[in-house]
Parts: sequence; C-alpha cells; structure tokens
Amino acid sequence: MSHCESLFPRRRTRTVRVASVLIGSDHPVSVQSMITAPAENVEAAVAQIVRLADAGAQLVRLAVPTPAAAKALRAVCDRSPVPLVADIHFNARLALAAMEAGAAKIRINPGNIPVADDLYRVIDEAGRRGTAIRIGVNSGSVMPRDRDDARQHAPQEIARRMVDAARSYLDLFERRSFRDIVLSLKGSDVPTTVWAYRHMAEACDYPLHLGITAAGPREEAVLKSAAGLGALLAEGLGDTLRISITGDPVNEVHVGRRLLEVMGLAPLAGVEIISCPTCGRCEVDLTSLAEKLYEATRSIRKPLRVAVMGCVVNGPGEAREADLGVAAGRGFGVFFRHGQTTGEKIPQDQLFERTFDEIRRLTAS
Amino acid sequence: MSHCESLFPRRRTRTVRVASVLIGSDHPVSVQSMITAPAENVEAAVAQIVRLADAGAQLVRLAVPTPAAAKALRAVCDRSPVPLVADIHFNARLALAAMEAGAAKIRINPGNIPVADDLYRVIDEAGRRGTAIRIGVNSGSVMPRDRDDARQHAPQEIARRMVDAARSYLDLFERRSFRDIVLSLKGSDVPTTVWAYRHMAEACDYPLHLGITAAGPREEAVLKSAAGLGALLAEGLGDTLRISITGDPVNEVHVGRRLLEVMGLAPLAGVEIISCPTCGRCEVDLTSLAEKLYEATRSIRKPLRVAVMGCVVNGPGEAREADLGVAAGRGFGVFFRHGQTTGEKIPQDQLFERTFDEIRRLTAS
Repeated sequence: MSHCESLFPRRRTRTVRVASVLIGSDHPVSVQSMITAPAENVEAAVAQIVRLADAGAQLVRLAVPTPAAAKALRAVCDRSPVPLVADIHFNARLALAAMEAGAAKIRINPGNIPVADDLYRVIDEAGRRGTAIRIGVNSGSVMPRDRDDARQHAPQEIARRMVDAARSYLDLFERRSFRDIVLSLKGSDVPTTVWAYRHMAEACDYPLHLGITAAGPREEAVLKSAAGLGALLAEGLGDTLRISITGDPVNEVHVGRRLLEVMGLAPLAGVEIISCPTCGRCEVDLTSLAEKLYEATRSIRKPLRVAVMGCVVNGPGEAREADLGVAAGRGFGVFFRHGQTTGEKIPQDQLFERTFDEIRRLTAS
Repeated sequence: MSHCESLFPRRRTRTVRVASVLIGSDHPVSVQSMITAPAENVEAAVAQIVRLADAGAQLVRLAVPTPAAAKALRAVCDRSPVPLVADIHFNARLALAAMEAGAAKIRINPGNIPVADDLYRVIDEAGRRGTAIRIGVNSGSVMPRDRDDARQHAPQEIARRMVDAARSYLDLFERRSFRDIVLSLKGSDVPTTVWAYRHMAEACDYPLHLGITAAGPREEAVLKSAAGLGALLAEGLGDTLRISITGDPVNEVHVGRRLLEVMGLAPLAGVEIISCPTCGRCEVDLTSLAEKLYEATRSIRKPLRVAVMGCVVNGPGEAREADLGVAAGRGFGVFFRHGQTTGEKIPQDQLFERTFDEIRRLTAS
C-alpha cells in the first residue's frame, strides 16, 4: 500500500473487476462520471466519453432506457477508451441486452425489478460473463411519499431504511453465489449519506461507490459532495466515486479527481493553484488572476504547483515549495522558482497570458 | 440539544465566552471571518465588519500588527455589531493594547511570543478582563525550513508536531489557571489538518476552531475546506470555524454558513438552489439559470428551497419538497408550488428575472 493510501487507512474490501478497472481497498479509489448524450447518438456519446476519459474518468456510465439504446451500446462500447457502466431501471431485459452489448458493469436498483426470476436471470448472466453489478439504493426510493411525513424523518431513519433495502437485495445476489458487487447508498443530503455508508460498511465487505444524489449549482454541489465524501474518505470508506454537478460532466471528473488529491488518496495529477488570502499589501487583482489560472489549467494532466502571491516582497519566500510562482506588484509581476525571482518584470496586462504560457511550457510532454 | 445538532453528536467541550458569543459543544457552531481592511481605516474596517455580520458572521477577526492599529481598534470595536478578535503576532504589548481597546478575544501563536513573562502578562490580563484567547498553531510554524526535508514529512508527523506545540502552550496557560481557550491547528492540506484536530481532541476539552490555512481560488478553497472540515464535523469535532478563500471575505461567511447547513449542524438560513443533473430532456440552459439564481440569492437571509428543473413533465413531481419550483421548457418556463404548476407560461428570456422577483417576494419580511 502506498504512502498516499495510508493517510486515511481504508476499510478492507474484496476486489471487484470491471474490465481493466479494479475496485476495492487494494486499488486506488477510481473516479466515475456519466454522459448526458443518448447512446443512440453514437458519435455524441463516444465524443463525451472520450472527453471524460481525457479529464481522468476511469469508468463512465450511460443510461440504457430503451432497446434502441441497448442496441446502440455495442458501437459505443467498441469505441470507448474506458469500461462503460449501463444504467438500467425497471427492465431486466435491458440489463441482459446491455451485458450482451459489452457493458463492463451494470447499475441497477433491484427494488425496481420486482419479479425475483427476472432479477435472478440478470444475476446469473452477469455471473457467466464476469460482469460486475452496482446495486444502487438512493434515498428517494425509500422516502415516504408524503411531504410532511418525509420532513419528519430524520436522516438516520432514512439511512437505516436504505441499508435494510440494500441488505435484502444482497441476500438475493448471494443466494445465486454472485459477489462481484459494488454498493452505493446515495442520499440527497450529507447526514443521510454519511450514516447510510457508515452502517453499510459494517455489514459487508463489498466495495463502496460514493456519491450524493442531489446535483446542484456547481459551488453547491462541490461543497456538499466534498463535505460528505470527505467525511467518508477520512473514515476509510469509499472505493470509487462520482460527484454529481449540474452542467458539463467534465466538471464532475475534475472535482472528483481533485477531491482524491486533497484527501491524499491520489498523487497530484494536474495543476494546483495556491493563492494567498488577499490583504492590505495586495496591489493588483490577485483574486481574478488566481481564478483565471484555475479555470484555464483545469484540463492539464501534468502535476505542477503554481503559487499566485499578492506581494513581490514576501511572495517568493512564502511560496518556496511551488514549482512556479508569480508575484503581482504595482503595474508588473515577477516569476519565481524555488524562492528566487527570475528578475524579469512582466507588465500587469500580460501577466495572465505570460503565466499561462509558462505553465503550458512546464507541463508540455 | 436540538435535532440538528444530534445528527453528528459533538465532542463534549467546556464553554468559552467571547462577549455575546458562546463557543463549545452546548452551543451552535459559529462562523467567523476576517477583514482585509486595516484597523486604522476605521470607516472601511467597520463597513467590512458590518457586511460580514450581515452575511452571518458571528465573530470577526482583524489584524493588529502595530500600535496604531491597536489604537484605532477602540473606535472599530465601539461600532462593530459583533465581537471582534484581534490577530496578534510577535508582540505581547499589542495583545495588551488590543484587550484594552475592547477586543473580545485575541488570537496568538504563543510560539512567536518567546519570553514567558511577556506571555504570562497577556494571559493574566486576559484572565482579569474575561477576554478569551485562541491559541493558533499552523502547520507552517512547525514545518522544517528545508523544502526537500518538508516534502518527506508525512502529514501525520506534521500533525503530531502541531499537537505537541499546542500542548506545551496549554501547559503555560493552565499554570496561570487560565482556561478560556479555543484551539486551532490549521494545516495547509486536509490530512494534516484532520489528524491534528483528531489528536488534539483526545488531549483536552477545549473548544476547537476549525480551518485550513491554504486559501486558494474559490472552488479550490471550497473543495478543500468542505472536505477537511466536513470530515471533522462528521466526527463531532469543531465548535467554531473559518473558511479561508482568496477574495471577498463575504464568500467565506456564505460558504461557512452553508457548510454547517449541509452537515445538519444549522437550520437553513438562506436560499437553497436545488437543480437536477442535466439530461437529454433538458430544453433550455438549465445550468446557467441555476448558477445565476445561486449567485443572485446568496445574500438573502430567509430560508427558502428553490428547485430548478429541466423538464416541465417531471419537474413538479420530482421537486415537490421545494418551496418554489421553476421548470424550464422549450421557449418558456412554469412556476410550481407543492407539486402543482401555477399555469402561467413565462417566456424564456424573462425566466431568471421573474424567478428572482418571486424569490424576493417569498423572502421579504
């Protein structure tokens, strides 16, 4: 086990193979996302999957809501650079068709496949093919329908119901000797989610897929997901994860990857922008420079630490651990490396472009 | 203890009074921030404090780096709507002057007040006045100076040094029978911070002030702070907190407040924007509508849940727990409340303005 992985010792799990990706405590926590394009639009679906894979997604999920989608899935699988997970609801035949088409894993909520024989057919076929299954129980599926009743239910009670549902499904899978299972128990709020995973972790050794179902505006989704998943990862729980964010799913991958990095569960794999809190000494618009560099460098996949400092005097010293520093002064800025400035004065209006160029140069392969 | 507070049972602490604000496990977790204006600019300092208090800050900190700042502090304290915390470095006389000027709490790192008699004078004066003291040990103050050496030090080792330093300072305070102490052990990364607080929590019953020192661009700071502080709060640790973000400190207060809400540690006190993940059914730019409403409503201090849904068919049903819903369809949108649409079709180009107006109407006092 690497140094990184031991900072928050992980709960021991069995390993589940999803084609080339191994999920479980002996392997790095993997990042997933989901495309929004329909499978039938093969070109659009493949293009989105490639973008997610380029951003760092190790697994990509897509909805398979119709026989036409299941049929199109084969062409998508053939061209995907990463294993695909088919999201199936209500229909065992779609699950069988998705496996036939090449899905490396299927995600089902057994609660919406009510006939046991249908479910067993899916399980047995997955067993024959070596296809993994994620059992996904969301809080929505165990919530009372009545709004006032729902508000009275404490997260702990909803979490208990989710775990009870998951355990009853596990019984069905284990009766068929199927154990290539990943479990998710996503709530739409942090306490429900944290308690559901905590209790589930005690009841089995299956790997856990973490997530919070409520997407939301970007900052809200980042805050809620980082708080909930940060809590679980710090307790050693979680073997794969998806961050749900309204909008372009590439953001989900960037945030998921970065969450693992900040938890010390993955090495830095992109550009980290460090910036000092602004203070009275700040002479230029440091915030805007830091924000622009942050957005512009998110897709770079080479590790680099960049410090953006608001003062030419203390900046170089304070940021001596950065690979590249930029200190912004009155009317100009300077670069520094390892605590030493390069000497060149860069006019303020060129500072973003010049810094970005320097970052690209340092991260070019 | 309220329902909210019991979702993640808090570690038992003693209570520390900071003027009207009580810090400890018998009281809600409080939100702090820090102004960037110098105390000498009394008008600017007071204006910034008022903005932070309006946003929900219960305590506000400001730097007191010079005798002139300490002198100006009295006028700032007189006009502040919330208790003020004076940030003191290196100079015991500034700590005495800040207390004299009316600071309700002072924050010091005893490691940079090396003469024990100077420190004792500060402690004894605080005891006489009933002024609380935050002992703040940051990872930077225990890090090896050499860069390569620093990189070899695991977060666990840095955390241990921070706790050892804090414990040795506590000995000095307790020798003077002073116990109105709040402790902070902020690292610049999540693992260091989490381990420092975990170990400190076992060693004393003082309230903990949570934070991660590395500010950064807004999303980076939100992610890192939510992950680290979410982990600690879910373990019951933390009695007051500050989120550090490069830029306007009002953001720090919004994010801090919202973090407590999503952890179930504070009731909803503003507008929550819920939005569905976009999918093939999305017919308008849902992401942009959700983002604009999120930014526009951040300063509202009345609780309201607003669901922004991308489809007119399922939206109302899926968002029936929201106080106000808006479903966006092709060319127009509809409002709905409690799962029922109001019937009116709102042209797409008016949708943001009309929704924002409705939110203001519903949150007007």
